[in-house]
Amino acid sequence: MEQKKESPLVGIVGLGLIGGSIGLDLQSLGWRVHGLVHRTKTADRAKARGLAQLVSTNPTILSKCDLIILAMPLREIINPSPELVDALPLNAVITDVGSVKSAVLSTWREIHPRFVGSHPMAGTAKSGVESGQNDLFKGRPWVTTPESKTDLEALTMINKLALTLGSNWITTDAESHDQAVGLISHLPVLISAALLSTVSKSGNPKIINLAKRLASSGFEDTTRVGGGNPKLGSSMASENRKEILIAIDQYRESLNQLEKSIINKEWEKLEAELLGMKRFRSRFLNSNNTN
Amino acid sequence: MEQKKESPLVGIVGLGLIGGSIGLDLQSLGWRVHGLVHRTKTADRAKARGLAQLVSTNPTILSKCDLIILAMPLREIINPSPELVDALPLNAVITDVGSVKSAVLSTWREIHPRFVGSHPMAGTAKSGVESGQNDLFKGRPWVTTPESKTDLEALTMINKLALTLGSNWITTDAESHDQAVGLISHLPVLISAALLSTVSKSGNPKIINLAKRLASSGFEDTTRVGGGNPKLGSSMASENRKEILIAIDQYRESLNQLEKSIINKEWEKLEAELLGMKRFRSRFLNSNNTN
Repeated sequence: MEQKKESPLVGIVGLGLIGGSIGLDLQSLGWRVHGLVHRTKTADRAKARGLAQLVSTNPTILSKCDLIILAMPLREIINPSPELVDALPLNAVITDVGSVKSAVLSTWREIHPRFVGSHPMAGTAKSGVESGQNDLFKGRPWVTTPESKTDLEALTMINKLALTLGSNWITTDAESHDQAVGLISHLPVLISAALLSTVSKSGNPKIINLAKRLASSGFEDTTRVGGGNPKLGSSMASENRKEILIAIDQYRESLNQLEKSIINKEWEKLEAELLGMKRFRSRFLNSNNTN
Repeated sequence: MEQKKESPLVGIVGLGLIGGSIGLDLQSLGWRVHGLVHRTKTADRAKARGLAQLVSTNPTILSKCDLIILAMPLREIINPSPELVDALPLNAVITDVGSVKSAVLSTWREIHPRFVGSHPMAGTAKSGVESGQNDLFKGRPWVTTPESKTDLEALTMINKLALTLGSNWITTDAESHDQAVGLISHLPVLISAALLSTVSKSGNPKIINLAKRLASSGFEDTTRVGGGNPKLGSSMASENRKEILIAIDQYRESLNQLEKSIINKEWEKLEAELLGMKRFRSRFLNSNNTN
């Protein structure tokens, strides 16, 4: 018979969209949560919103935690402050929420023996201490990137965390993760931003004003991710630089192929290519729904 | 005192998404509508769906019409059959719904003295005789591209049609229209399709399978227009070829600029560029809503 264990005491570093949402969900399930933030003002708002039972700007708030989730911006995860590192109990399990995993593991496998890399793939257009919400992770992928020497007990605890939040558990290696998100998450931000840049620079105010009046849901959809969080976009690019540069190269080649059909007036070929893409998209997103 | 005039008898050539939707709306407002389609089977479905009072595969059905709307696929509008041209009454007002205007005007200003180019900018993911729906044009732009010699009475009738359907009336010249839609409608289709192509060709099945499981709303949004109607995408490219090739060139330059920041590790510059795009998008789409 399975023994009912007490839930771990969880420390969350950073109570923005991801950290705050984890705090809300875990508490509503009866877990105990301590939150560490930078500024007193943020701590006050986090307390008022009930993002954690205890919120402090002092890292000692983590000293009794069994599980610590690094939910700071990506660059802070990769360059943690010495005060934070010193405050992490050696026997705690540590995970993060960064959207790039190779760079995070390079740093953290040296810092802490019980670190496990995570990337909960959920988001809204919001950020900051006011943005945390319940049920953000339900039905969304929670990618974990264990290595051969990863502590099994630590990995089991992250699994429990992900399933508790209602996420779909996915494990892979950090390099594959970074390649895949480079293609389906980081590259889209850049090609979408380049579209905005093209329109903004097109020069003729008459055309821009007309374009404004004619732009519809197609333009809105295609530019959504390019008009997202600039800090996140830039840090994705800096921390996943190698994979993104490869992806941009492949993308330019794909665009050149389509352009070639237009230059050569190969309309049937272009239609066949577009039909192939329509079918690919449908298969790609459908299999996503059933997984 | 204004005299109440009887509504014109409207002929619609092609009862797909646009033609069928116009037929439904006009009839529900008491207008009389005749529909011309290619195939008997389509005529039967159009009758069953009530897209027009009379539906036929015989062009003589247009002989008494005051206003005729060419709602065929773009390539058919630009290359109309001699039977259709012969069936158009000389005193009727003719308009079209094509998404490219210079090529349409080149053809039609020679064919008919009372032709006025239109582009009702509304759509759904659907096409064909089953796709017409009420209120498709409400609040959407109806672009008309009159020329100096355009018949004023004809233009007035198109204005009445557009306002009757609840559209926002916009007039511009054909070249400006084609430049603007090249940027905000045709270019997005191609850059979105190129993203699908990049992912589909990325080669490594392990990465593609992982990418499938991780793809979320961002990828879905960015690829939506690229996975749309292939025939429409190809005919937009063929009929707006010159503007699209210019737009692709400008786009590649924008992408190269972003790539350059990544190659040179200029992260603050990249963040500033992304912030600029975020602000541009917000202004661009907001002014759209208030126009």
